[in-house]
Amino acid sequence: MEHAKPLPSYLVKRYHGWKATTHAENRAWYKRLANEGQRPRAMVISCCDSRVHVTSIFGADQGEFFIHRNIANLVPPYEPDGDHHGTSATVEYAVTALKVAHLIVLGHSNCGGVQGCMSMCSGEAPELEEKSSFVGRWMDILRPGFDRVKDEGDAARRLRLLEKEAVVVSLDNLMTFPFVREAVEKGNLSLHGLWTEIGEGDLEFFSPADRSFQPV
Amino acid sequence: MEHAKPLPSYLVKRYHGWKATTHAENRAWYKRLANEGQRPRAMVISCCDSRVHVTSIFGADQGEFFIHRNIANLVPPYEPDGDHHGTSATVEYAVTALKVAHLIVLGHSNCGGVQGCMSMCSGEAPELEEKSSFVGRWMDILRPGFDRVKDEGDAARRLRLLEKEAVVVSLDNLMTFPFVREAVEKGNLSLHGLWTEIGEGDLEFFSPADRSFQPV
Amino acid sequence: MEHAKPLPSYLVKRYHGWKATTHAENRAWYKRLANEGQRPRAMVISCCDSRVHVTSIFGADQGEFFIHRNIANLVPPYEPDGDHHGTSATVEYAVTALKVAHLIVLGHSNCGGVQGCMSMCSGEAPELEEKSSFVGRWMDILRPGFDRVKDEGDAARRLRLLEKEAVVVSLDNLMTFPFVREAVEKGNLSLHGLWTEIGEGDLEFFSPADRSFQPV
Amino acid sequence: MEHAKPLPSYLVKRYHGWKATTHAENRAWYKRLANEGQRPRAMVISCCDSRVHVTSIFGADQGEFFIHRNIANLVPPYEPDGDHHGTSATVEYAVTALKVAHLIVLGHSNCGGVQGCMSMCSGEAPELEEKSSFVGRWMDILRPGFDRVKDEGDAARRLRLLEKEAVVVSLDNLMTFPFVREAVEKGNLSLHGLWTEIGEGDLEFFSPADRSFQPV
Repeated sequence: MEHAKPLPSYLVKRYHGWKATTHAENRAWYKRLANEGQRPRAMVISCCDSRVHVTSIFGADQGEFFIHRNIANLVPPYEPDGDHHGTSATVEYAVTALKVAHLIVLGHSNCGGVQGCMSMCSGEAPELEEKSSFVGRWMDILRPGFDRVKDEGDAARRLRLLEKEAVVVSLDNLMTFPFVREAVEKGNLSLHGLWTEIGEGDLEFFSPADRSFQPV
Repeated sequence: MEHAKPLPSYLVKRYHGWKATTHAENRAWYKRLANEGQRPRAMVISCCDSRVHVTSIFGADQGEFFIHRNIANLVPPYEPDGDHHGTSATVEYAVTALKVAHLIVLGHSNCGGVQGCMSMCSGEAPELEEKSSFVGRWMDILRPGFDRVKDEGDAARRLRLLEKEAVVVSLDNLMTFPFVREAVEKGNLSLHGLWTEIGEGDLEFFSPADRSFQPV
Repeated sequence: MEHAKPLPSYLVKRYHGWKATTHAENRAWYKRLANEGQRPRAMVISCCDSRVHVTSIFGADQGEFFIHRNIANLVPPYEPDGDHHGTSATVEYAVTALKVAHLIVLGHSNCGGVQGCMSMCSGEAPELEEKSSFVGRWMDILRPGFDRVKDEGDAARRLRLLEKEAVVVSLDNLMTFPFVREAVEKGNLSLHGLWTEIGEGDLEFFSPADRSFQPV
Repeated sequence: MEHAKPLPSYLVKRYHGWKATTHAENRAWYKRLANEGQRPRAMVISCCDSRVHVTSIFGADQGEFFIHRNIANLVPPYEPDGDHHGTSATVEYAVTALKVAHLIVLGHSNCGGVQGCMSMCSGEAPELEEKSSFVGRWMDILRPGFDRVKDEGDAARRLRLLEKEAVVVSLDNLMTFPFVREAVEKGNLSLHGLWTEIGEGDLEFFSPADRSFQPV
């Protein structure tokens, strides 16, 4: 691996600032977390998008959330075929090893992945339909959501609905994992769907009674 | 999806605190980020572990880092086979769509995934060798790293080395993606390997000259 | 222009050091900033004083702050009379072209310009009252601040208060620019007043509720 | 001034990081600078552009440079008419009070102000010709430079030449200030013209012999 470079100096400075302030203040607790292991109360699955900042929104410190971030906060269906399944591995580890009490799927507005899915499913993005497109094949997970929203209102409304379907499809797929279903049915785990508007900072939660999202 | 529950009240309270403080202070910028799109300078691939807090370590606010988090901060090799490849999709999006300038792989001490890999490769965790173990199949990515460290020192030292191999293997695999290699060779992208000790908060970077990690 | 000299060698050496280190580390990002244009989040108006180092205090790298520096960090009132108004031009460009989200006025202790204003307004610096004194005429902007502090405590206290008035007067004058007022009222821009003690490195922010400065 | 807001939290964190590291390391020197006054060796006049980072390029610490930044690093001609002249005040203070030994004008590529001047002088930006346009009236200073380059090569070449004229015009105007001319002629002050390409980080200096810019 001959290509790696040292850390850019602007991040070196910020790291030293963190070490001298936040870390210094919390050293005793961080050492316990290192020695005794983590015990996060919740797992969060959110998007990689730089504008979604789950630790900030929930004022979380180290040790609180086990966080998986991928394109469009998607969970694929249960497929134990022996291949690499990064997202399924995170869910398995959180539920069976860490035994988190809450599993939160956090969607968001202005999602590039969801926009790409909308274009692809509408036939406007042939490059995403290529077998070699990792983003396209990943967004295939959201196709069932597209089918549910494709005839709704105008383009802006369909996109908003599809962003929320990315949460609902993931919640649906989570229940196809036997260990998730079992933990939920035993009352050891609760699932939560959220969607945030990144400009205004609004937050809505999924209400299964009428499959709608309501303000928190 | 009948199983979803409302957000636990402790998180509802924290969210409202964030909305009234951090969001209120930064509203103009967050609205611009929503309206004009993100332009993150760097992508970070880190572990889901609740004790690894990349935004805190680097004092990052919304919009700065595109963050993928998975078990043990691993990147699989390039495999454009048409299946769901969540991690590969994040790398593809960051490099080809967002054109990030830095791609940072951040490993850490006390990593449960790496510990599992060590046990599995040492024959001490048959359950991880099952075809149906998502964590086991995901940690297969790190097997080339295990082969390099298996004869080194004592168990504690091997584990430390394997945590760092999780960074090096990922950097190696990143270079198997044609679009990553091209961006690196054109000088449009730099790769960086980091490892942090979560108790003391130390940070080391990978130096390719002698394949070692050095304090930042 | 026959008088220009080559760069002094001590600066040539430092430049080559920067090129080989900081620039080399950040080349991909700096090229993107050049090709795609700047998108600074904030404008800072600070003093030219060599002891005020805004990029250092805030750990800023290239691209983060649009920075105007003048004597005593002053903003004159809105005067669209067709003359050269260098400071007004910077505010106009930042707010209407760059659409920064934050506009920060950063004052400081031990300010020579403020000291000069105090002497001039107290009748102790007739040379600054000359029509031809550029510093004197520039410091006229701060006269309303002098009127508010002239009867306060002893000389040291009055000077400290006048340094802070340089921030408040500038914030007041900023609101006389129609494009600033409009952006503030629409929530697209927030104004911030700061004052730093350059020896101890303390930093205070202006709190409008009681027109006082509080530690950050 | 009822509109000011507290400092955004991302900057509060960075400030505390700076205080605990850079400031702590340099406290003795910064205290001396506060107690004994600044004694900068050079004045730099550069652009407000967020991508021009003079302290970084020259590895400068607090106390080294007296820095004025305005749109397009321009110095207007000597006009002692009793109005506010922010730039002239900075030059007067640096040369007569601080007695700096070097006065450096630093221009740069991709300058929005210079681009605006080019458009305005070419008749393509009527909004900049309005009396009320602060940017337009400020860029009037560069009109003599436009006249010298308007018939040169293609648009890209003219723009590059005009960026460099912003340096030469400023050097010319500096010599119209009696106190600058006197200090230069007595050998107490040297003037320097620089231009930097912000992507590649190249730096050139103005050579008066043939009115050209040469690599440093």
